[in-house]
Formats: sequence, C-alpha cells, structure tokens
Amino acid sequence: MSHLLKRQGSLSSKQALTTHQATAEKSVTVGVVFCGRQTPGGHNVVAGLYDYLAGSNSTLLGFVGGIDGLYKQQTVLVTSELLSTYRNQGGLDMLGRSHEKFPDTLPKMEGFKDACVALKLDGLVFVGGCRTATGVAYLTEYLKAESVPTVCTVVPAGIDGTLTNQFVESTVGFHTACQVYSELVGNTAIDGASAKKYWMFLRLMGSDVSNIALEVALRSAPNMILLAEDVDASRMSLQEVVRQVADLVTARAARGRNYGTVLIPEGLVLSIPEIAVLLHEIDSLSTESEDKDLTVEAVAKHLTSWSAALLLSMPLYIQVQMTKKRHSNKSVQLSAIETERLLCHFVEAELSRRKTLGQYNGSFSPVCSFLGYQARGSLPSNFDCNLGYSLGGTAAVLVHNGLSGYLATITGLKGKEEEEWKVAGVPLTAMLALDDHKHHHLAYNGQLRPHVPVKKVDLHGAAYKYLVEKRREWGMHDMYENSGPLQFDGTTADDRPATVVEEDRDYLEELEVLHAALHQVRRACRPGCSSALLHLATKSILTLTDVVSMMDEVASV
Amino acid sequence: MSHLLKRQGSLSSKQALTTHQATAEKSVTVGVVFCGRQTPGGHNVVAGLYDYLAGSNSTLLGFVGGIDGLYKQQTVLVTSELLSTYRNQGGLDMLGRSHEKFPDTLPKMEGFKDACVALKLDGLVFVGGCRTATGVAYLTEYLKAESVPTVCTVVPAGIDGTLTNQFVESTVGFHTACQVYSELVGNTAIDGASAKKYWMFLRLMGSDVSNIALEVALRSAPNMILLAEDVDASRMSLQEVVRQVADLVTARAARGRNYGTVLIPEGLVLSIPEIAVLLHEIDSLSTESEDKDLTVEAVAKHLTSWSAALLLSMPLYIQVQMTKKRHSNKSVQLSAIETERLLCHFVEAELSRRKTLGQYNGSFSPVCSFLGYQARGSLPSNFDCNLGYSLGGTAAVLVHNGLSGYLATITGLKGKEEEEWKVAGVPLTAMLALDDHKHHHLAYNGQLRPHVPVKKVDLHGAAYKYLVEKRREWGMHDMYENSGPLQFDGTTADDRPATVVEEDRDYLEELEVLHAALHQVRRACRPGCSSALLHLATKSILTLTDVVSMMDEVASV
Repeated sequence: MSHLLKRQGSLSSKQALTTHQATAEKSVTVGVVFCGRQTPGGHNVVAGLYDYLAGSNSTLLGFVGGIDGLYKQQTVLVTSELLSTYRNQGGLDMLGRSHEKFPDTLPKMEGFKDACVALKLDGLVFVGGCRTATGVAYLTEYLKAESVPTVCTVVPAGIDGTLTNQFVESTVGFHTACQVYSELVGNTAIDGASAKKYWMFLRLMGSDVSNIALEVALRSAPNMILLAEDVDASRMSLQEVVRQVADLVTARAARGRNYGTVLIPEGLVLSIPEIAVLLHEIDSLSTESEDKDLTVEAVAKHLTSWSAALLLSMPLYIQVQMTKKRHSNKSVQLSAIETERLLCHFVEAELSRRKTLGQYNGSFSPVCSFLGYQARGSLPSNFDCNLGYSLGGTAAVLVHNGLSGYLATITGLKGKEEEEWKVAGVPLTAMLALDDHKHHHLAYNGQLRPHVPVKKVDLHGAAYKYLVEKRREWGMHDMYENSGPLQFDGTTADDRPATVVEEDRDYLEELEVLHAALHQVRRACRPGCSSALLHLATKSILTLTDVVSMMDEVASV
Repeated sequence: MSHLLKRQGSLSSKQALTTHQATAEKSVTVGVVFCGRQTPGGHNVVAGLYDYLAGSNSTLLGFVGGIDGLYKQQTVLVTSELLSTYRNQGGLDMLGRSHEKFPDTLPKMEGFKDACVALKLDGLVFVGGCRTATGVAYLTEYLKAESVPTVCTVVPAGIDGTLTNQFVESTVGFHTACQVYSELVGNTAIDGASAKKYWMFLRLMGSDVSNIALEVALRSAPNMILLAEDVDASRMSLQEVVRQVADLVTARAARGRNYGTVLIPEGLVLSIPEIAVLLHEIDSLSTESEDKDLTVEAVAKHLTSWSAALLLSMPLYIQVQMTKKRHSNKSVQLSAIETERLLCHFVEAELSRRKTLGQYNGSFSPVCSFLGYQARGSLPSNFDCNLGYSLGGTAAVLVHNGLSGYLATITGLKGKEEEEWKVAGVPLTAMLALDDHKHHHLAYNGQLRPHVPVKKVDLHGAAYKYLVEKRREWGMHDMYENSGPLQFDGTTADDRPATVVEEDRDYLEELEVLHAALHQVRRACRPGCSSALLHLATKSILTLTDVVSMMDEVASV
C-alpha cells in the first residue's frame, strides 16, 4: 500500500495552519476521543492534531475505547511511530471506538472532570456526530461551572453526514462511505441488468436519515430509491410503500423487464408509521424490562392488538430481529432489521394478489443485500484524508487559543484545491436548537432540551429535485451508472461529494463578502462625502437593520 | 468515467496480433456468445474480437441472451458505436448472459447447427468456464460429423477461476472479483477491529471451489478461513467444523477479544458430508418432482431419517433456502443458502454449551454478510481489461486459421509488461479428463463422460502452504490487511493475481526452452562431431525417451 503514503494531509492545509501557529507556541497536553461509529479519515484527525501540536512540543494522549476510555483514564501516548501505521488508513482501530453514547448524567460528567484534572488536560478533542456535539456543549458548560480549564472541541465526523449544517459542509468519512456504496450499488445493478432475472433490493447503512442513500442514488441511477424523508413527509403507510414498489415491478414486467435495483435506506422502517409505532412500543417495553432479550411471544403479549398483528404478519426471522436487544443508546438496532427482506415479503404477497387478478404476469425473484459494514472501514478517499487531517489541525488551533465549546470546521470544500479551503471554529451554542424532532434519544431524562439537529435529506434541495425529475426515467429504463472503485490517483481521485458541489454553500466566503461590502460603504462615506450619498447610504442601511432585527425577533420566538 | 477510456486493450497485445494477421485476411462472419455468469472483462473479449476482425472487413454478431439467443438466432451486429459504451465496463449487459447450461442433448445441438448454417457463421466464440469448454468440445465433434464448417472457440472466463489448468493461468474476471472482495473483507475486518464487539462471518461467492476465498484470504489475513477443499480432504463432519470455529472464538475470548473475521466460501456446505448428503437427497427429489417449489414438510417426508433430522435442526429460513427451487443446471443454488448464518446458529449453540460447562465466558455477537453480487458487475481491473481484449483477439486468429475446438490462452501473465504475454490456442481435447469428481452435473444423461475438470484449491500448492503457516498467527492476533479499492492508475494499478505470481507457471515459455535445448543438441551433434560427444548425447537422449514413453503409458492407464 505504498501508494497511499503520499496521501498524507495536504501540504496546503499544513501551511495554512502554520501561519496561525506563531501566535500559539505554548506546550499543552491534549486528549483525543473517538465518540461516533467507525468513519474513514478518523485516524487522520489524530494525525492532523499530532502534527500541529508537534510544533509546540506538546503531548497528545489518545483515549482507548472512546468515552469509556476517557472515563477510565485509559490512554496511549500518540507518537509518530504509532501514527505511521494508521495515517490514511480506515477504521478507528488505533484507539477503538466508543461503545456508549455521550453521557448526559452527572456521575459520568464528574468522571470526565476527574480525567481532565488527573491528566492535566489543556484540551479534549471529541471526534463524532450530532450526539457528541450536543454532549460536548453541555460538558463545556459543566467544566466551566466547575472551574476546570480544559478546552473542549468537536471534530464533525461520521459516514451518515448528520452533523452537516450551515457551518459544516461535510463530515469526515461521508464521502468515502458513499463512494464505496456507490461502487457496490453500481456493480450490483449492472449484474442485475446482465442476468435479467433478479430484483436487487439493497439496504444501505446510514442511521435514520437518507443522506447516504440520496448521494449514492445520484451516483448510480437505480430504478427506485425509497427515501425515509419522502415517506415521512407524505405520511405513506406500509401498504402504500409496498404498492409503490409493486407498481414498478408490474410496470417493468409489462415491458419484459423482470429485474431491477431498489435502494432502501436502513432508516426507512422508522418512517413507515405502522412499523414506527410497533418499534416504539417494543422500545418502551425493553426499556422497562430488565431482561435484555425478550421472546417474540412475550413482546407480542404486551403490544396493542394492531401492532401485535403487524408483528405476527412478518416472517419469523424479522420478528426476532424486531424484538432483539437494543443498541447502546437503547433505540432500535437498525442495521439488524432486514427491511429489504421485509419489504420483499410484502411485495411478493401483493404481486401474487395481482397475479390472481390478472394484473401482473411477470416473475419476481428478489435478491436482498445489506451494504453496511463493508464501507466504514474503507481506506479514506483523498478528500476525507485531507478533511480529517485539516480538521485535526484546526482543533489544535482552537485548543491553543483556549476556545472551549467550539466545533472545528472548513468551508470552501467544493474547490478542488485544498489551498482554497478556509478553516474556522464555530461555537457549539450557534448550532443548538429545540425542536420536536423524533430523535427522542437526544431527550435528557425524558425531557426535551436543546441539541445539535440531525441533517436530513432536504426535500426542497437541488439534489432531491434532480432525483424527482429523473425518477420515472430511471425507473422504467436501465440507466445504471457505475462510479467505479474509489481512486487515489488519476482524474477522479480528487472528487468531492456530489451534495457539497450541488449545494454550493460557503458560509465564510459569504461572511467575507458582507464584511468587504460594509467596509466599502464605510470608506465611501467618510467625513467630506456628499450629503446625497450619506443620506442614501443611511436610509439603505437603516432599512437593512430593520429587516435584520425583525428576522432576529421572528427567529427567537 | 473518462479515466477508463485509456484502459482499452493494450497496444502491445494488438501489435502481437497484427503480426499474425497478414496470413489471414479473408472476410468472415463470427458470432460471440456469453455462456457463463457475469464476469468483469467479458465486454473486452468482444472488443478484442471486433478490433481484430475489423482488419479483414468481417462481421461480428453478438447473440442476445447467450445460449438461448444462439438457439433462437437472436443477434445484434457489433459495431464500434455499440462497443464504445461497453469497452472496459463490467457486467455482460451488452448482450446479456445465458440462463441455461451448455446443452448436451441432441435437439439443442441441432438448433446450434441450424444457427450456424442459417447465419453462415465461419466462427463461434464462446465465453465461459469449464462447463462451456466441455460442451464446445462435444459441439465441435458434432458439427464436424454434420459437415458444418463453423469453427468453435472458447475464451476462458469466470470470476471463480475454475477453468484454470496447465495451459490457462487465469480466467477473465478472477482478478477483478478477488480485488473487490478483498477490499470488502479488509474493510469489514478493520470495522470489526474498531468496534471490538462483533464476529464478522463473510460468505464469499465462487461456486463449490474455494479459489476466490483463498486469494482473498491471502490479501486480507482474516482470523479464519474455512476452505471447502480442506474440509473435503480431512473429511470433517459438521460438528468438527463448528467445533473449530467455536475453538477460535473461545481462544480469542480468553484474551479479551470478542471479535474476529471468518471467511466462508459459499461452496463449503457441499463439502460438509452431512449437509452434502442432505442436499443430494433434496436434489434427487426435485429432479424427480414436476413441482418446482416443494414445501419443507413435503421434502422432509421423503428424506432419510438422518437427513430429515438435520434439516429440521436448522433455523426455519435456512430450511426454506435448502428446499428452494434449483438453478438452471438443477444443482443447488449455493448463493441462496446462508451458510454463514447456519454456521453461526450451530456455533452459538456450541458456545452456550461451553458456557454452561464454564469453558467459555465471552460474548458472541455474529454479523453475517454475503459478498456476492457486488463484485461480478465491477469495472474490470487493468489486468482483466487487457486479458479479455487479448483473448478476444486470439480467438479471432483461431477462427481465421480454421482451428475448431480450440481454447484461446495467454501465458506469461505474471509479467508486468503485456508485451511479454504469449498468445496461443490449445485443443480442448488436451484438457478433457474422466474422473469421479463430484461435479455430477457434468454427467451426460446420468453417465460420466470426459469433461474439462474444475480447478480446485491445490492443497500441495505454495499458496495453501503459506496459509497453513500463517493460520495460527492470523487467528489469535489482528493482522488484517486492507488491499484497498481497485486502482486504475498508480503503482498498484497493474497488479497481477497473487496465485498467478505465486505459482509462476509459464507453459509456452517452458516449451520454448525445451525446443531450444533440442535444437542446441542437434546443432552440436552434426556429422563431424566427436564420437564421444555423439555417444554421450545418444545415451542421454535415449534415457530421456524411455522416461517419456514410460510416463505416457502410466498416464494413459
């Protein structure tokens, strides 16, 4: 794998960081914690941190086993020898990942405080997603109240791109995971179009949002994609989802095409109301129950009759999956529920009904696959290597400058040249929001509290609109694209995530434009300027301040 | 995917072919048929054929839907426009693949004859594996007997590398498929080592031999690989296989490692005697029965009590998979049987038995995946692009020279330079063998007849010995390697299959060396040479001819 060694953090981002470094030379002790699930580029965050800190003769401690390692103060000293094996490599196996969610209970927070004090930490860098960002916001407050001087920082990471918002264009690992999944979807679709006898149902990992599925669909043009957000928004019932799939199968069969490829995000089950209710009922049962593994019969007895009927109408192995023991965050373990098979089961029933009625006369051989654990451990793309590395360096700058409760971010990611990237820190409080979003695991002891919201597919966004436009054509024809394996060299090696390019947002760039405009007005309206100009400028700017303050009021209601 | 366009068949192989071309300029009509399953590089075989034939103003017809298309005379004219979309692309979707096995009944053979005559075919190129090669050998004989002048040629292709032998170093697609599977296995193993709580059971596609699994294991160093050939050779029972896996789980748990990665070739089930017997019993039932889909109960009633007991001890969904309707060749549909889950089911039972006895105290959370349809449609590696293209050209040369019943081959594949490759044609009869190998689907109307043997993992080969040597170390430690995504540019882009490099065979090279040596002896011993030299040379060569004729006799017994 010698070809990977040149993919170390781009010099450009290194250079960008050294310009800041002159102001912050004090030697510090910093800890780094992997909080989220495996994500490609995670190791490069540590590399970026280490390389930046090396300039000030500082110490970088890696916590082994994530949150738990922090709690137990299990550390390993990060050295250049240790890093040499893990730079540009996938997985989080250098330190291991967390097995529990970011704590929101006082005893755990106290454990963190103890670690900060005992290890004399100047900074703590948390690598993770929304739950981590929310937790760190509260931890920062707690440490401040306890007069612990440790600076807390977040690096946004995760394959599902949930910690994306106006300040964050992409999370570390999203690009790589989507690339790997796109390759596999492309391969499978082409395989299906060659054999011409299978319907491929592919379930894609990515929590309860469909960010990954959308990006993958745009790259591979499958016959159908069932977006959780879509089902959610149009409040489709299970029967309607099944009918939609059966309609496509029927329509293609009428043209002699008894094959196709359907993408199913793993979070779809949570968006289908009947199943969501069923899972919620099971969830509350298993939270109440001490017994971690409940039998299907025991569960069914405690459900509403409607949910029990639905559960028992499912194939036996799905019943077992539905009632299985829960994740660390106690919510359902999505990856263990074979939604694709469940859907096929119901579609098969619907098709045989249609066959009896003479409405369908094809053959339906479904092949189900789960594309999950094959991407999170992938070698990171050049983009994710550089993103992780640069964010690691940015986090170090935040620690050096004593900015606690900040998230490291980079804007201008769409640009092919890393020299154009702009690094920044954003206070976590700027991202907190209070909504009635279904992410109830973010609730604090049963009560809602502000949290960093999860990015879902934007049904008004350009990417979704493109999908809607193409849907029919992709459905009936074989327009499959194969984006091919992830490349480290050649013309596609420096590709950017399609959504980043599509959305074309650059927060810092726009801020700069505004400030330059304000400066220009100030310059033009110095003492001695014409009264007409002064008058016009004053009136215009007062109108603008009115608008701004009114919008501020609306936002704060 | 513009970066792929430069991967067209290497100029070198084109040049190698044009040297022959001068002798064969007549315009011909050639048909090409995809016989096997999807394989990366298949489209390049057609491209190689087309480009070579273009020199003689010939016509290339592609049969749509493989064997069936040939039978029904459904053709499409291959043009450079058509090819431009498919060159260097995966899948077989340009023409679609065959859905039935190569026929061995007279009516079908007559159908082929009709197509050859009606379409005035000078040549027919079959792209496929062992079954195809065997069939074409018999077809050649039949056409010759019927005085049909069509030349039949075989291009060895298939991801499972079964049509590999002393003349064939690698089949088109084997390299690519193994690369893709290695990437996925590497990613999954790294993911497992990061989470440290799952046992990953990965089933690999590849018919009833473990060629793919071995190549992938050598590239990814998993904790365990269960080779079908190994189980076969040591006549392990189901219980022994289960115990072997449980032993590793127990040993790793004792070191605090409740995770690992196990590779399972899909053909393993056929090597475990109890399951093989069960499947054989079910097989004969469904061949006898008109009803294609038998219920589990109906099947169980007709089985021996032992097999019925085994079937009913399996999880319900596996019972259904076992009794499912059969493939085109009527043998069991391996890819539909979730061996990995079946094994986990039994391992789980064994582990809970050990827990009761106090012999095991870990946690066992298996995650099962099938790595199957994600590789066959992959963009071909540079190696497979060039191999397919060059073999296509070679097949055209064979047709031009009227050599019927030949297989196109290339030797010297291990060399990084395609200029060093040597193209050749080998008579299919040189590969036919009569053995009692369990590939009973090759039997002709229930009777054994010569066939081209399937390449299995060589338990005396260098690759297997290396595996045996590493087994313990890989088992107990985390030595996972991630070969990364297939590269089209950079230092790894022109990699060769590990087994080709390892085995280091080059039939044509050795032939040349022998002939050169014979020539040298002839030259040295011309009239006028010393009688001592003549005497020594004669004695030596007579000894050799004795050895050769004796070995010939032994072989023909």
